Amino acid sequence: MHVDLNSDSGESFSNWQMGDDATMMQIVTSANIACGFHAGDASVMSTTVGLAAENNVAIGAHVSYQDLANFGRVFHDVAPSDLTSLVLYQLGALQALGAPRGAKIRYVKPHGALYNTIVTHEAHARAVVDALVEFDDELPILCLPNSVIYREAERAGLRPVVEAFADRAYTPEGTLVSRREAGAVITDPQVAAERMVRLATEGVLEAIDGSDVRLQAESICVHGDTPSAVNLARTVREALSNAGVEVQAFV
Amino acid sequence: MHVDLNSDSGESFSNWQMGDDATMMQIVTSANIACGFHAGDASVMSTTVGLAAENNVAIGAHVSYQDLANFGRVFHDVAPSDLTSLVLYQLGALQALGAPRGAKIRYVKPHGALYNTIVTHEAHARAVVDALVEFDDELPILCLPNSVIYREAERAGLRPVVEAFADRAYTPEGTLVSRREAGAVITDPQVAAERMVRLATEGVLEAIDGSDVRLQAESICVHGDTPSAVNLARTVREALSNAGVEVQAFV
Amino acid sequence: MHVDLNSDSGESFSNWQMGDDATMMQIVTSANIACGFHAGDASVMSTTVGLAAENNVAIGAHVSYQDLANFGRVFHDVAPSDLTSLVLYQLGALQALGAPRGAKIRYVKPHGALYNTIVTHEAHARAVVDALVEFDDELPILCLPNSVIYREAERAGLRPVVEAFADRAYTPEGTLVSRREAGAVITDPQVAAERMVRLATEGVLEAIDGSDVRLQAESICVHGDTPSAVNLARTVREALSNAGVEVQAFV
Amino acid sequence: MHVDLNSDSGESFSNWQMGDDATMMQIVTSANIACGFHAGDASVMSTTVGLAAENNVAIGAHVSYQDLANFGRVFHDVAPSDLTSLVLYQLGALQALGAPRGAKIRYVKPHGALYNTIVTHEAHARAVVDALVEFDDELPILCLPNSVIYREAERAGLRPVVEAFADRAYTPEGTLVSRREAGAVITDPQVAAERMVRLATEGVLEAIDGSDVRLQAESICVHGDTPSAVNLARTVREALSNAGVEVQAFV
Repeated sequence: MHVDLNSDSGESFSNWQMGDDATMMQIVTSANIACGFHAGDASVMSTTVGLAAENNVAIGAHVSYQDLANFGRVFHDVAPSDLTSLVLYQLGALQALGAPRGAKIRYVKPHGALYNTIVTHEAHARAVVDALVEFDDELPILCLPNSVIYREAERAGLRPVVEAFADRAYTPEGTLVSRREAGAVITDPQVAAERMVRLATEGVLEAIDGSDVRLQAESICVHGDTPSAVNLARTVREALSNAGVEVQAFV
Repeated sequence: MHVDLNSDSGESFSNWQMGDDATMMQIVTSANIACGFHAGDASVMSTTVGLAAENNVAIGAHVSYQDLANFGRVFHDVAPSDLTSLVLYQLGALQALGAPRGAKIRYVKPHGALYNTIVTHEAHARAVVDALVEFDDELPILCLPNSVIYREAERAGLRPVVEAFADRAYTPEGTLVSRREAGAVITDPQVAAERMVRLATEGVLEAIDGSDVRLQAESICVHGDTPSAVNLARTVREALSNAGVEVQAFV
Repeated sequence: MHVDLNSDSGESFSNWQMGDDATMMQIVTSANIACGFHAGDASVMSTTVGLAAENNVAIGAHVSYQDLANFGRVFHDVAPSDLTSLVLYQLGALQALGAPRGAKIRYVKPHGALYNTIVTHEAHARAVVDALVEFDDELPILCLPNSVIYREAERAGLRPVVEAFADRAYTPEGTLVSRREAGAVITDPQVAAERMVRLATEGVLEAIDGSDVRLQAESICVHGDTPSAVNLARTVREALSNAGVEVQAFV
Repeated sequence: MHVDLNSDSGESFSNWQMGDDATMMQIVTSANIACGFHAGDASVMSTTVGLAAENNVAIGAHVSYQDLANFGRVFHDVAPSDLTSLVLYQLGALQALGAPRGAKIRYVKPHGALYNTIVTHEAHARAVVDALVEFDDELPILCLPNSVIYREAERAGLRPVVEAFADRAYTPEGTLVSRREAGAVITDPQVAAERMVRLATEGVLEAIDGSDVRLQAESICVHGDTPSAVNLARTVREALSNAGVEVQAFV
């Protein structure tokens, strides 16, 4: 039994700090590194890939619409061919900053509005897939199960990797409960930890209505932007280890 | 006898067009491609590397301070380590957009204020050199002779490549006459062509005071941003060919 | 009988030129001036308002989503309250650059994706209306007839001003024929001119199917980004004058 | 006896938080509000001017080079006329966002590299002065004593206002001790408070060598970006009040 823990990292920018990357790199096995389009800048990227390399954490490219002003959280209705170029641009930039530190991109995770959009948006999902095919078709892509991006990645011969969210409630259909609804976010570290242990050992999550949902996730996303988020991440990691689940990168 | 012709390209951005890349790619042997920091965007870069590949033109990374608002023409007093990261970022981005078209970066040419700054600015010159060493220490760098960047590149084991400017007058010391002075820019295509033929065949340019200056240049920079610039570039190329000088990439 | 002629202006940026503002300012009576969010920068805005003031052309704020990378042509799903702030920001910036030249904002015209979005998007239409109410509720807003923005502007006590497009074909319902369809764009200056004369004198346009459409437009939009566009604009202006229609700003 | 307390505010951006504006607005009498060029965005500006207005804090425009990537801390060698336009742009934007909340710009404080540059750089100092003259020549400008900007502001008929820094050591000549030197930053709130009381009551500061320096400052700059900075600011304010110094805006 094994599972990956992934977390966003390198989301500082200019003079603004975000998250505690140094601590999170000791907890997670995969780091989704911002590529300068929603967060991060060349210097932050350089520091972050170094930190990942030192901690033997797998490096993922956290690609986004080009939108520092909204932290990549706003849908941009860009032309698909432009989106492919934008993703390639970010992949190359991260690759170049990682290489001198012996760090190679091992996977891709779309960020924010792009992540959510390609759950359903065919043209943008294909645009992202095209970028991966062009850059390195052996790169896996983290995504939600039953999503358009999952299907399109698979169809193109890529490897889609399903992730679950440690701090989110699920519907009986296995989708995330909207943040606007009560109970959508799980804040108790113990509850999150127990849920993730069951997920990793049985492939099952309890949905918000109490029913069981089957979910085969190779990776678990944890957050690290607040001290309580770091605490939850650490609790999840320890519970997995205690349950005999090996926490290791999926790549 | 042979010489390279290089020209800036891919300097369109968003909805703004600049230059006639399609025509220039038929004239020059090396294309300095903007990397999104002074001009160019991911889509423009993708198109431009494709155009270069189709025309067997060598691709150079035209790296710049991050400054679309001033077209990279304003000195930025950034920290050297940040500058190294910024240059790596651009190199990686261009590499990623070129690779799917079979196009690899073959050399680097700093742009605008960065180009001028590192003629004398040691810390920024070394920052650029560091980026090349980290990215690929076999990449040559285009520069002025007798410049700090030439010396620093050489010291780091890189290959500095001297270029001359087809449309610029020179001082008796072999430096460029400032654009603010009369006669600094050569507009007559025939005059420019004859000067470049003499440079390529004899290694000599007539300085603005009528004296001869020795200059060993492996590449000649021509512009392509106006129809008259394109015409001058074409005239230079034809004159070189007629004089038995082979026009070919320096890499 | 009178009508306004409006045109986009100040769409250069950094080192990129667009349009022939100096010529267009002699043709049009209202200039939609880019505010730095899709085009224009502080220096371009300063020059452009000066040009408008010299030519007694009414100044309009051409407000946009914040998107130089796509020239404001891509929908951004921003929060409405953010959009209101973004529009205020642009209005203030233009006002400040115009004031030293004795030039005041006389109206507002949303640009590109924002213009198109608020034809139907209630939240963004209201966000724009809120900005105008907060900035100066006597500023008219140029828009399409029968649009959500028209209705919302009117409801808020603003003055929506209907414009027609000199170079576009219309459906029998009075909406624009999509650019993707054949015949959508009118390129013959004489045809455009005759259509605009009929519009200004009779309030009628011939639709693409040959039927007549009633359209009460206080302003006619002409383009100035190419020499042929300038020519069409001039032809329309002359035809209107020859037909006894006074061409004057609507404000 | 009275003195102003000013502090930077509105320096959050996009999803990044900086400082504790809500608390600082209860301590200071003047808020230097970022205008989107080094920090702040339209929404942050809107919120911040609202907060200032609620707390009867005077609003200052914290104008900067256009440089979010370096938080305005890097010198940009822009053309003076461009700099004037950039400053006007920011002033107008802030004015427009403040007006709906009944908040008017009461003074200007250049930020970061611009603040430091115009201590000695004549062309940039005059460019800033030109912007104020064009926007509103009754706006005072915060600056260091004996600086080029002080002299140029005065010469243009503006009102330069000298400020002192609560957490910085001074040379015997009355200039700031460079941050690179030991003892440059004062971290003990009590020490800072006693120094500021002496400054406000006697017009004297003890320099780093123990000598006394005369300094007539109408305003004291305090920081608010960390909890300890907030604590120092509060301690300074209380000490001033206890010493019978009225803390009030200088405008």
